[in-house]
Amino acid sequence: MRSEKISEYTVRRLSHYFRFLADFEAAGKATVSSGNLAEKGGWTSAQVRKDLSLFGSFGKRGLGYSVPELRARIAEILGLGRRWKVCLVGAGKLGSALFRYEGFRNQGFDFMAVFDNDPRKIGRRRGAVTVEDVARLGDVVVAEGIEIGIIATPAESAQKVADTMVEAGIEAILNFAPLNLVLPSHVSLHNVRMLIELESLSFALTNKEVDITRS
Amino acid sequence: MRSEKISEYTVRRLSHYFRFLADFEAAGKATVSSGNLAEKGGWTSAQVRKDLSLFGSFGKRGLGYSVPELRARIAEILGLGRRWKVCLVGAGKLGSALFRYEGFRNQGFDFMAVFDNDPRKIGRRRGAVTVEDVARLGDVVVAEGIEIGIIATPAESAQKVADTMVEAGIEAILNFAPLNLVLPSHVSLHNVRMLIELESLSFALTNKEVDITRS
Repeated sequence: MRSEKISEYTVRRLSHYFRFLADFEAAGKATVSSGNLAEKGGWTSAQVRKDLSLFGSFGKRGLGYSVPELRARIAEILGLGRRWKVCLVGAGKLGSALFRYEGFRNQGFDFMAVFDNDPRKIGRRRGAVTVEDVARLGDVVVAEGIEIGIIATPAESAQKVADTMVEAGIEAILNFAPLNLVLPSHVSLHNVRMLIELESLSFALTNKEVDITRS
Repeated sequence: MRSEKISEYTVRRLSHYFRFLADFEAAGKATVSSGNLAEKGGWTSAQVRKDLSLFGSFGKRGLGYSVPELRARIAEILGLGRRWKVCLVGAGKLGSALFRYEGFRNQGFDFMAVFDNDPRKIGRRRGAVTVEDVARLGDVVVAEGIEIGIIATPAESAQKVADTMVEAGIEAILNFAPLNLVLPSHVSLHNVRMLIELESLSFALTNKEVDITRS
């Protein structure tokens, strides 16, 4: 890779390109232009070319990109050429919704374990796995070699859960709990904050003259 | 407002500043510096000052910002000085998790109605409201003056739901369904894509030498 600095938005667009390429492939298209990809996502073709150029040279001027080649290369860049071991803490409604979502498994993310601290949930089945006591989190992460942790607990428990994950060797956390986790810098953290998403919408409704940019 | 172009990240940071100011207020602090706010979120104080300067002049050099004043002003900018009428389509596990989350109501977002197309769900209570047939969506949005729509349906139904919302006058949509909605440009759309969040993490784990920036 040429650049050592990549915008989070570029990474997200790669995920979208990956999906669009699957659609193009399913539709029997052999090549696509940056314009075809741009159109599907509402970006400019210059943005698409710039994103892809960060990862080397693809396609031929005037001929476009080979759909299967570009798709395979983006899968590799996104780390999708392999399977990832994931654990989930919090077997409530949100956790169960995440756990049941087949898109994760289809894309290579395997839920190896689910944890909760509620005795009424511990021991219950969630798909192929049984909800375990969160006291076992660290041991299971080590024993199973789990690499990605998802936190769907109330805010009060989330920092302790994250600390246990990190101590056990997890380096990537997806956090749904409404708080700012404090983590060592080698850990990648993504937060999904539902309330902050809603506030961005109330901002947009309140400030209709403002153009909210994503770059 | 001075600027007509604002980064989505600035809007998100405003939501964070708002929460941090509430914490400072609860801790009895009368004034804070840009450094205090920056530290809590892991940003630079220059970034905080730059964000706030977009919305006018706050604070006095060397004295910092008045906590209650800045908090009230950010609430106003985010559109939080009033209540918003929200509807939810999709009363499955994810929808129910969203509906039960008290943070929304506490911050001024009121769920006026919940819809589903599953006869087993229609007629059931969800907190203070009853799940209605999604066929009634447009009528209820108009009758209740609903302003924000949340979509927590499978991908197949989401575009139709969004179209109905927009026809009925909704101008802000939070979408959890895994697809790219096509909407008129006057509608603000935020997507929460769980799989894309996970792919950003697998990217980070696969490309550890890369610095993923947010600005």
